[in-house]
Amino acid sequence: MIKSSRPGAHSILNASALSMAIGISISGLGLSAQAATPTLSEADFEASKTTYFQRCAGCHGTLRKGATGKNLEPKETQKLGQERLEKIISFGTEGGMNNFDDIMTKDEIKKMATYIQMEAPIPPEMSLALMKERHKVFVEPKDYPTKPMHGRNWENFFLVIERDVGKVAVIDGDKKEVVAHVPTGYAVHVLKAAEHHNTLHAKNPGRFWYTQGRDGKLTKIDLWQTPDKMKVAEVQIAYDARDVAVSGDGKYVVGGGYWPPHFVIADAMTMEPLKVVSARGVNVDGEYVNESRVAAIYDTPNHPSWLVSMKELGQMWQVDYSDIENLKITKMDTAKFLHDGFYDPTGRYFQIAANASNKMVVVDTETQKLTKLIDVDKLPHPGPGANWVDPKCGPVGGTVHLGVGKVTAWGNDPKGHADQAWKVCYETETDGPGVFIRTHPKSDYVWADQTKHPEPEVQQSIQVISKETREIVKTIRLTEKAGYAAVHIEFNNDGSEVWTSVWNRKDSKEPNGEIIIFDAKTLEEKARVKGLFAPTGKFNVHNRVNHVT
Amino acid sequence: MIKSSRPGAHSILNASALSMAIGISISGLGLSAQAATPTLSEADFEASKTTYFQRCAGCHGTLRKGATGKNLEPKETQKLGQERLEKIISFGTEGGMNNFDDIMTKDEIKKMATYIQMEAPIPPEMSLALMKERHKVFVEPKDYPTKPMHGRNWENFFLVIERDVGKVAVIDGDKKEVVAHVPTGYAVHVLKAAEHHNTLHAKNPGRFWYTQGRDGKLTKIDLWQTPDKMKVAEVQIAYDARDVAVSGDGKYVVGGGYWPPHFVIADAMTMEPLKVVSARGVNVDGEYVNESRVAAIYDTPNHPSWLVSMKELGQMWQVDYSDIENLKITKMDTAKFLHDGFYDPTGRYFQIAANASNKMVVVDTETQKLTKLIDVDKLPHPGPGANWVDPKCGPVGGTVHLGVGKVTAWGNDPKGHADQAWKVCYETETDGPGVFIRTHPKSDYVWADQTKHPEPEVQQSIQVISKETREIVKTIRLTEKAGYAAVHIEFNNDGSEVWTSVWNRKDSKEPNGEIIIFDAKTLEEKARVKGLFAPTGKFNVHNRVNHVT
Repeated sequence: MIKSSRPGAHSILNASALSMAIGISISGLGLSAQAATPTLSEADFEASKTTYFQRCAGCHGTLRKGATGKNLEPKETQKLGQERLEKIISFGTEGGMNNFDDIMTKDEIKKMATYIQMEAPIPPEMSLALMKERHKVFVEPKDYPTKPMHGRNWENFFLVIERDVGKVAVIDGDKKEVVAHVPTGYAVHVLKAAEHHNTLHAKNPGRFWYTQGRDGKLTKIDLWQTPDKMKVAEVQIAYDARDVAVSGDGKYVVGGGYWPPHFVIADAMTMEPLKVVSARGVNVDGEYVNESRVAAIYDTPNHPSWLVSMKELGQMWQVDYSDIENLKITKMDTAKFLHDGFYDPTGRYFQIAANASNKMVVVDTETQKLTKLIDVDKLPHPGPGANWVDPKCGPVGGTVHLGVGKVTAWGNDPKGHADQAWKVCYETETDGPGVFIRTHPKSDYVWADQTKHPEPEVQQSIQVISKETREIVKTIRLTEKAGYAAVHIEFNNDGSEVWTSVWNRKDSKEPNGEIIIFDAKTLEEKARVKGLFAPTGKFNVHNRVNHVT
Repeated sequence: MIKSSRPGAHSILNASALSMAIGISISGLGLSAQAATPTLSEADFEASKTTYFQRCAGCHGTLRKGATGKNLEPKETQKLGQERLEKIISFGTEGGMNNFDDIMTKDEIKKMATYIQMEAPIPPEMSLALMKERHKVFVEPKDYPTKPMHGRNWENFFLVIERDVGKVAVIDGDKKEVVAHVPTGYAVHVLKAAEHHNTLHAKNPGRFWYTQGRDGKLTKIDLWQTPDKMKVAEVQIAYDARDVAVSGDGKYVVGGGYWPPHFVIADAMTMEPLKVVSARGVNVDGEYVNESRVAAIYDTPNHPSWLVSMKELGQMWQVDYSDIENLKITKMDTAKFLHDGFYDPTGRYFQIAANASNKMVVVDTETQKLTKLIDVDKLPHPGPGANWVDPKCGPVGGTVHLGVGKVTAWGNDPKGHADQAWKVCYETETDGPGVFIRTHPKSDYVWADQTKHPEPEVQQSIQVISKETREIVKTIRLTEKAGYAAVHIEFNNDGSEVWTSVWNRKDSKEPNGEIIIFDAKTLEEKARVKGLFAPTGKFNVHNRVNHVT
């Protein structure tokens, strides 16, 4: 019953946990009595641990020290107690936490409330040697096809994350047909393409894609292959991971771990892991952080380097990959709880949310220095972001917020509009907090989802904002089915279509999620792609490779 | 009696330690029986912990995972058992471990053998905020004297570490008089001076010195002050520390922690701590290292950067201090167990021992890349090192070894003697393994101590080697008193004298250690400085500031 001490759990027990354990051992003998401490059976502990990893760790951390979400260590959770915790998990909070009563049973919620009152189990480290053991090549590079093995227009393919089934759907954007469900890691967070022209490997930008699963599996996909062979190589680089990037020279792929906290550089051709770099460090407040997670990773368009965002440290690391045995890293102090971001139109500045600090951070990849911290409303979350031109402020970048129903736009053209640069230009109120914002240079509109709102009516609706008037021109409800949410927006290759997801949160293991496609001008529904498992993020080959935001 | 679980010990207990603890609790009730596990009383545990910190942690690590010395985790030590451990501690090993029977009692050795069979207690982290609390200014910079407050030739002062009493003796090299015993941290490992001319603060090179105590206390000494006021500021930057360096611009001082594993940048004027950088990382084998200790730190003479050696990682980090909020670090992969080193005569290349890897590592501060790994004999240890000109190989650098009685010299002039560069030129056998080697451009000799040899006759003798013949020309026994060793060599400002220490290892708290001064040409004794507490390292102001090696 003493869950934190199971062999193989690699637990750290503090003195109180130990005396608790001894106390139980003594009271088990019918002797002294100690205050009741929360316990779960082995099976329930394991089930809750899995659910915690899938649903909670992203915001609260594996060690539960908090980040976007609150600290959930026993010292905090035991103060709240079983009943209060069950309520919070069921109905969410005003602070930006979702309700979970629609996707977890009452019994699961009860056990989770107990689980988080117990010591967090600590996952093990992962050595380079172990990663090498977990490296698999399914198609040898010498056997890669020299031309596409299908007659499709692969440059208008969409790669769609099928969140909870560990797959990426490849969809023909011209024909609106599912080409393949490629098995990947679990709950892929992000996909990135080899983009550049300067190597043999990457001479067809957008042909090769890399997916980072939450289970740390980094998968390489070849869009020229026949559907059953698209997965060409794989390596596990962590137990919990989020982002991936490719080097501009096409030589390396880098995956970022939440746990262990590190990033791993692998050969982009074979996926052989080459180097591990720890992310553990001292945060901008001068405190050591053990669970220092690697959030977004992006190649810098104008330099041979990656930007690696250190969530809890509040640092952006610019990592020069031109010599990985003498690795040069610039550690820019910014703000804590960095998450995801995007470049300005020139590719020089990176705009990233420091979500629980309520700031947008701007760093300059040229000088490798912090440019600006922009104060914004609660929990900004741009996802892949959106840049457009505002009639008054000129070029702007924009974000939605996890914590408030709002689109915030700021000037991002320091050369042409110096007085507007890196200041909030305007805010547009929406009906609810969201996760993704998107637009296209040819579109008159900015699209924002509202996935974080607890009420189905709002959660299931996407809002369309006019670039000209800054006002909402249309609210589109994608579905009315319980447990289904509207999430994520992506344009097709020529900007004429807008693709949105009906995400079957509840029955995510069934292929009953769908993509609803709208005409980008009339905002009318145009087509649907059905038969998808929990579709969330969508990546159009042409748009991503050409940095159309 | 369960020492590892004392409140406040910040222990990490693994599952076996816990079941052990439960086993004890049960067997304490007279029920089931488990194998006897080593225990100590609270007082004995604390005393052994202190001794372990002072005598053992340097080589074996606080977490006892091993480095220069072997792994001493319970899984290893319990295999050896009480009796064998007592013997090893008493008499040392052929692998380079000292005997301790001359400085620890039989009872202390017995308890230490037990202590290392128990789980290692884990010290806490140290935040920047705590360092700020532990920052003290004794003399405000505005009150610094504008000229020396004594009539002495401070540029020929020697600063001498009085190892076990937490002091640095300031000695007038002209008059052979002790000027002051300045209170510092415990067992100061290294002192460094503000050297450069380009700031107000450092316009008198060698006036200000910084000492790093093993207890993490970083102390600033002003040699212009009256003896009672020489300690002008202090900050604690770790619980266990070794080295310190000053930036070339005189703005910053940096101290390196063994625990917590980090380095800390402070204002060189006031000693206010400014920034903490974690040293935890992934070693050159691809494994995560929690206790990743910072060994040597040196300012690079030709660049605005420090070289920071990461002992367990096997990496040399070149840290650019020109913008500490956007800190640029190049992490050069070299070899594990880096310890101490020195520059070649041009100041471009740094030559450092990777002691337990039996290699000298050479890195290039210009290209910021590894230049060469030189295979050498067991456990090289150059201390502050020695460069001289060999008749056949040209310019060479040299080291003694902790593991074997030998001086190894290698070519270090890649421009003038490319064929000799970074290859072993010759080896000279000595009578015993040593810690320090030293010479002076005007001297015909290289001096080497033999402090690591277990026999008093050798341990108490220093050997003098001819640069011309490469042979030992004289063996000088400094003392015959039990518990006293000969250690460390330093020349005076004009190279005419050689200063050596009689280190009272046994009675180190009494002022009965002494310095014996020799004529550098005749090799005859010339003078003595008495009344010193455990004198070890000696730093001549002129030689250190002008990089005379």
